[in-house]
Amino acid sequence: MQQQKILIHSDRLKKTLETFAEFGRTKNNGVTRLSLSKEDIAARDYFVSCCKEIGMTVKMDDMANIYATMAGVEDKPPLVMGSHLDSVTKGGRFDGVLGVVAALEIARTLHDHHIQPKIPFTIVNFTNEEGARFEPAMMSSGVLSGKFEKTEMMKSRDTDGITFGEALAASGYKGDIENRLKEAIAFLEMHIEQGPVLESENVKIGIVEGVVGMVNYEMEVTGESDHAGTTPMNMRKDALFTATDIMTDLRKKLNQLDSDLVYTVGRMNVLPNIHTVIPNKTIFTLEARHKDPKVIHQVEEAIQDLPKSLKGCAISARKLWGRDTVVFDQKLCDRLEKSAQSLGYSSKRLYSGAGHDAQFIASYLPTAMIFVPSVNGKSHCEEEFTSYEECANGVNVALDTVLSILDY
Amino acid sequence: MQQQKILIHSDRLKKTLETFAEFGRTKNNGVTRLSLSKEDIAARDYFVSCCKEIGMTVKMDDMANIYATMAGVEDKPPLVMGSHLDSVTKGGRFDGVLGVVAALEIARTLHDHHIQPKIPFTIVNFTNEEGARFEPAMMSSGVLSGKFEKTEMMKSRDTDGITFGEALAASGYKGDIENRLKEAIAFLEMHIEQGPVLESENVKIGIVEGVVGMVNYEMEVTGESDHAGTTPMNMRKDALFTATDIMTDLRKKLNQLDSDLVYTVGRMNVLPNIHTVIPNKTIFTLEARHKDPKVIHQVEEAIQDLPKSLKGCAISARKLWGRDTVVFDQKLCDRLEKSAQSLGYSSKRLYSGAGHDAQFIASYLPTAMIFVPSVNGKSHCEEEFTSYEECANGVNVALDTVLSILDY
Repeated sequence: MQQQKILIHSDRLKKTLETFAEFGRTKNNGVTRLSLSKEDIAARDYFVSCCKEIGMTVKMDDMANIYATMAGVEDKPPLVMGSHLDSVTKGGRFDGVLGVVAALEIARTLHDHHIQPKIPFTIVNFTNEEGARFEPAMMSSGVLSGKFEKTEMMKSRDTDGITFGEALAASGYKGDIENRLKEAIAFLEMHIEQGPVLESENVKIGIVEGVVGMVNYEMEVTGESDHAGTTPMNMRKDALFTATDIMTDLRKKLNQLDSDLVYTVGRMNVLPNIHTVIPNKTIFTLEARHKDPKVIHQVEEAIQDLPKSLKGCAISARKLWGRDTVVFDQKLCDRLEKSAQSLGYSSKRLYSGAGHDAQFIASYLPTAMIFVPSVNGKSHCEEEFTSYEECANGVNVALDTVLSILDY
Repeated sequence: MQQQKILIHSDRLKKTLETFAEFGRTKNNGVTRLSLSKEDIAARDYFVSCCKEIGMTVKMDDMANIYATMAGVEDKPPLVMGSHLDSVTKGGRFDGVLGVVAALEIARTLHDHHIQPKIPFTIVNFTNEEGARFEPAMMSSGVLSGKFEKTEMMKSRDTDGITFGEALAASGYKGDIENRLKEAIAFLEMHIEQGPVLESENVKIGIVEGVVGMVNYEMEVTGESDHAGTTPMNMRKDALFTATDIMTDLRKKLNQLDSDLVYTVGRMNVLPNIHTVIPNKTIFTLEARHKDPKVIHQVEEAIQDLPKSLKGCAISARKLWGRDTVVFDQKLCDRLEKSAQSLGYSSKRLYSGAGHDAQFIASYLPTAMIFVPSVNGKSHCEEEFTSYEECANGVNVALDTVLSILDY
């Protein structure tokens, strides 16, 4: 006979999300909760009080990451779940906080059912995931995984000139380096998709298999500024028309590559940008993301194959930066998929196009993520929304997986 | 037996141009001589002294235009020749001033040869042709021809907040409205080409038959900003890619029109202009010039035929302004051509792509212009250059025409 599934308390999840949305609430129902701001500290205080209320032990590490732990029957490396409480300026009520509240709701559900897990269950709140106040993004998971140099991070300044180190010292949340997340049986992060795929395909649960690799290039086209009225078309060295021509050619090539490839010209500047003067310079970025390094390599080849000069203009391409694809733990993904199936929710395995703390943690712990749909794919804005029902679906999937891990 | 041609004094022309180049000289051998600035006043003072030295009568009108007149045997409407002494910031040593100095050199040559013309010969210096300190360009010829409202012009402010009216009052060059240029047998303006055509075709003299008409549009493409990493290509409403697509289509259409058509996208702004965000807005200007109103009409039709929406983006086009083609006096052009031929200089009839005072004066006086070649087609910059020999060629052509008119 099949055992009755344990489910979370959906109304409590909703109320908790609504409570967190008050910390830094904006006029248009969004959230501004920059890392280590007074709004972030208020959210942390509330989070800690919720954890203590159900008997969890709370510790902080030297990056002000918070770890709330429910003791296991055995004192072994824990199962860790969490995300981040900070937001961008005028961000939404779900990005980050949903992953922390999901873990809290799972702990509360275990507590409701008087379940003491076989191994410890730890909720983590990572400091400064967004990088909106202190660059770079995913700062603390970057330090934990050795991607970023802690001493460098301490010097990062906000627009008021305050360093991250100063904000950390003043926060009351700076703890001991000894408490850093090291060993764990697995790390699980739940997050909103921040894209339109799940919603458009009417899929409830995204099983995130990894984070796509990306490259970012800057192209510079240099021509000559001449009078727009007196220079015949065939004597021009028009940096804008040449730039749009190579951009169009590049798009044709990239469109022939894998259909999962995404690429964007997000920034483009034309000089001198006067309507009566033929542009002498056009600079634009080309950023491309794909899970398969071969496809990214093809993108880079297409860029390197650009002519060095065209129609009197010089063309150069410079790689600004890139990052490799991160592949999550396939067993953990399988388990999440099974949980979704067992609950009757449609699911889809996909790669994240956006960055998350999980991508750094994945370098030393078995890691996976769960996505829930984002209405219109919007995030990092006040309109960001995921229905509370779909949030609850995701948390139930996570709970099912957590229970299966805690129990084995 | 053919009469010996009277020619100008080339060395004096060169020296005079060099002297004027000292008023507002820049480090890189250019000129900054903004209208009614102290540099412009110094140039005016020198110009007036030169004219008085050879017995010319100097008057000013209410726009501070200077008229220096050599009396004719008969007190009839004069033959008028001139241009402007003001320059743009970091402009060149030829734009404008060459036309004034050419007329001065012709007056000096008449004086050298003790020629009293049958009708008066007047040199004019128009105030504020460039519009670089006070907008709009060609301000005073615009007022003389009724294109601009004088009271509006008086309110035009420079970047220091000084109005044109205030600068005028302080200049010492404000005269009487009665002295405005009204009747004249003809108006002749000599100028550098400001384009590459004469130089590239190795032609010495441009006979300017008119000034091309033009239209200027602003196109706005509105899409939607989404995350560059999480939004599949086929779900994007990319305002930049759509803008470059319609720009490419428009260029294909315009390239099929007359080969003399010139068009330019000089200004283009992409929003929010962040490399990780799909642009939600792209705004660009399209400016087109041609002498034939039918061709300009075809350009406007092509713009009006743009789709109102494409790939999820809304597209709109707005006409910022336009101006009609100005046709100069054909008899005067014929006479200039004959003068060039008689001196053995190659010549080409062409339309000016740039604006000049002559285009406004042409609305009420028989008008034509002479162009001399610009090295690399450059103007409005410190590199602007025309060899003194080619300047002298042009002045000799003008002198020949002036003599033929003054003598009949």
